Amino acid sequence: MAADEFGIGRTGEAVSNSSTTSLAHTMASNNKPALVTFDRLQAYIAQAFVQVGMPPADAHKVATLMANADLQGSDGHGVIRLVPYVKRIRAGGINLKPHIRVLHERPGSAVVDGDNGMGHLVVSRAVELAIEKARSTGVAWAGARYSNHAGPASLYARMPIEHDMIGLYFAVGNANHLPPWGGAEMLLSTNPIACGIPALHEPPVVLDMATTVAAYGKVKAKAKNGEMMPEGWMIDRQGKPLLDPKRADEGFLLPIGGHKGYGLALIVGLLAGTLQGAAMGRDVIDFNKDAVTTTNTGQAILVIDLRAFGDPAEFKARVDTIVRDIRNSERLDGVARIWLPGEQSHARRERYRVEGIPVSTGVVNEIAAMAREIGIEPLV
Amino acid sequence: MAADEFGIGRTGEAVSNSSTTSLAHTMASNNKPALVTFDRLQAYIAQAFVQVGMPPADAHKVATLMANADLQGSDGHGVIRLVPYVKRIRAGGINLKPHIRVLHERPGSAVVDGDNGMGHLVVSRAVELAIEKARSTGVAWAGARYSNHAGPASLYARMPIEHDMIGLYFAVGNANHLPPWGGAEMLLSTNPIACGIPALHEPPVVLDMATTVAAYGKVKAKAKNGEMMPEGWMIDRQGKPLLDPKRADEGFLLPIGGHKGYGLALIVGLLAGTLQGAAMGRDVIDFNKDAVTTTNTGQAILVIDLRAFGDPAEFKARVDTIVRDIRNSERLDGVARIWLPGEQSHARRERYRVEGIPVSTGVVNEIAAMAREIGIEPLV
Repeated sequence: MAADEFGIGRTGEAVSNSSTTSLAHTMASNNKPALVTFDRLQAYIAQAFVQVGMPPADAHKVATLMANADLQGSDGHGVIRLVPYVKRIRAGGINLKPHIRVLHERPGSAVVDGDNGMGHLVVSRAVELAIEKARSTGVAWAGARYSNHAGPASLYARMPIEHDMIGLYFAVGNANHLPPWGGAEMLLSTNPIACGIPALHEPPVVLDMATTVAAYGKVKAKAKNGEMMPEGWMIDRQGKPLLDPKRADEGFLLPIGGHKGYGLALIVGLLAGTLQGAAMGRDVIDFNKDAVTTTNTGQAILVIDLRAFGDPAEFKARVDTIVRDIRNSERLDGVARIWLPGEQSHARRERYRVEGIPVSTGVVNEIAAMAREIGIEPLV
Repeated sequence: MAADEFGIGRTGEAVSNSSTTSLAHTMASNNKPALVTFDRLQAYIAQAFVQVGMPPADAHKVATLMANADLQGSDGHGVIRLVPYVKRIRAGGINLKPHIRVLHERPGSAVVDGDNGMGHLVVSRAVELAIEKARSTGVAWAGARYSNHAGPASLYARMPIEHDMIGLYFAVGNANHLPPWGGAEMLLSTNPIACGIPALHEPPVVLDMATTVAAYGKVKAKAKNGEMMPEGWMIDRQGKPLLDPKRADEGFLLPIGGHKGYGLALIVGLLAGTLQGAAMGRDVIDFNKDAVTTTNTGQAILVIDLRAFGDPAEFKARVDTIVRDIRNSERLDGVARIWLPGEQSHARRERYRVEGIPVSTGVVNEIAAMAREIGIEPLV
């Protein structure tokens, strides 16, 4: 799920498609992903949403954000979500004509009530509001309640960057996968933190991380490939390492740093959920299992205007220096490259714009089935 | 170092002293810690600082915060720091008459220049300013530059709580212990995150965590006890697990969640350090090795006024519900209790107020040596 595993340098990336040069959307065949242009992906997603009743302007906005998720390699949060979103819309679980309004407001803070609209629309509104407010107050917070799943956290944390602002984003996940430390009841989600920080000549520093060691999608991938999981990903109900991904239902994901990740997931949930009057803990609806009940998803962003802290160019030059110091620093034996957070997504964005965005055969086929149901052509 | 390891419930805590009931300060003997009342500890620390030239009002303020650190069990950040602080002051590394002033200011943000004063004074000023600003703007940020080590992060994250506000605190550590992920050069500190969130009838939720799996103090303790470290604390220069704490100099602390903790440490450093114009990365002075050079330490706090988000009592009641849901949830086999972040510190604070604060023999002896040098009586 993570677009950016800025870890020990690997020469090949899982989603790399350098052998294919086609720019157009190509037929999916065997297990080779189809390559779809950004414009095609964006237009197709918008078309599907319009077909199930979303106003065209909203459909365009959501589609743009989803295609941008795929463009940066956040392929667990882009077009892969089209089928479940459409399912939820058709089941009546999303309000397609929401009255998105500001509920509480101060010069430097706001709570946006999303009226159960698409999360992308609700969160975008909150981010725009926080950017506007930060221009005068220096720092501003905008949260969302009655929102929905909105895609990768980094999309929103990055938005303030072009305004010479920092974004710090918190969200409540849409299914509880994590028990408290020592517990056996999944009361917490993998509540992510994201942060976007502008640089001068370097790509921005963009962190986007869930508070568990492994994303649930990685467990499913191990099961599919018949591989065992490394120690540290999951434990069973006795608290012992769980290594067989086929037994994932018998255990729990582990938070990063043990009790620390549990604490982080809790704090993020209280800030992004409880503070905005959104769902948190036992209230969280598992949107994989329930396509109808209002999720009351909570998200929040803090926006920091660099102008309130001196000359933005000076700050960004200091970020460049730190980025370069890190990148060029001494490496452990066998490490090819040290990555900065957001650097791999940045490179992928540039590459996919030229080469096309890979969409897996599985997703292509699921979309084809949906397309038949709602009466549009397939993606490829 | 961590005051609150809200982990798998343990029946006995390392610093528990239930067998001793003395309220007064007791002679340190053998390895049994001395028990010192809060008032005695506070007055003694203040006396030592006044003796080396600190103005009495400032000495009282710093001493109160340091004694509060010990009171909550943050014993790596309380009176244990008196000797190094006094050493730094006598070496001319601290400005005892700082002109602490606001450098950049907006309605919701400020940068405080600490003029190389004691960190406790500088950060307190920043927190007070952020609390004042948040009353009108809803949310406010205040950062510090030319500050110094200020004790445990939770002290400051907790300050807004009594005003029905949330505190979210970031700091740059005073020595680099962490290489970037894949790296072998220690360019990052264990930059902590702390957050204080008010509850209604329950103790507040207070998280205070470094971004490494183990604090360096824990490694030193293992070495002292002749024990091996568990896998996951440290790696050697080949990237292999380092288990022998006596070889700690040959390796590095591991960040929580691998590349995630590296990303967090970097983001926290950019927010707490770089944004305020404070040291970060290669600029960070190792204050253990250098008692003279200005550290230009950076810290920052975000304060969120609950009143800007609806009725504070309603929010706090929702926090109570989540706290109780977590505490009373199903436990893993063999787990006695599920702790909330801050709960153990809270309990310790109540107990130490009655029983006295334990101060280890080692610290008592170090302080006795310092006391002879500066011409005051020993602590006990």
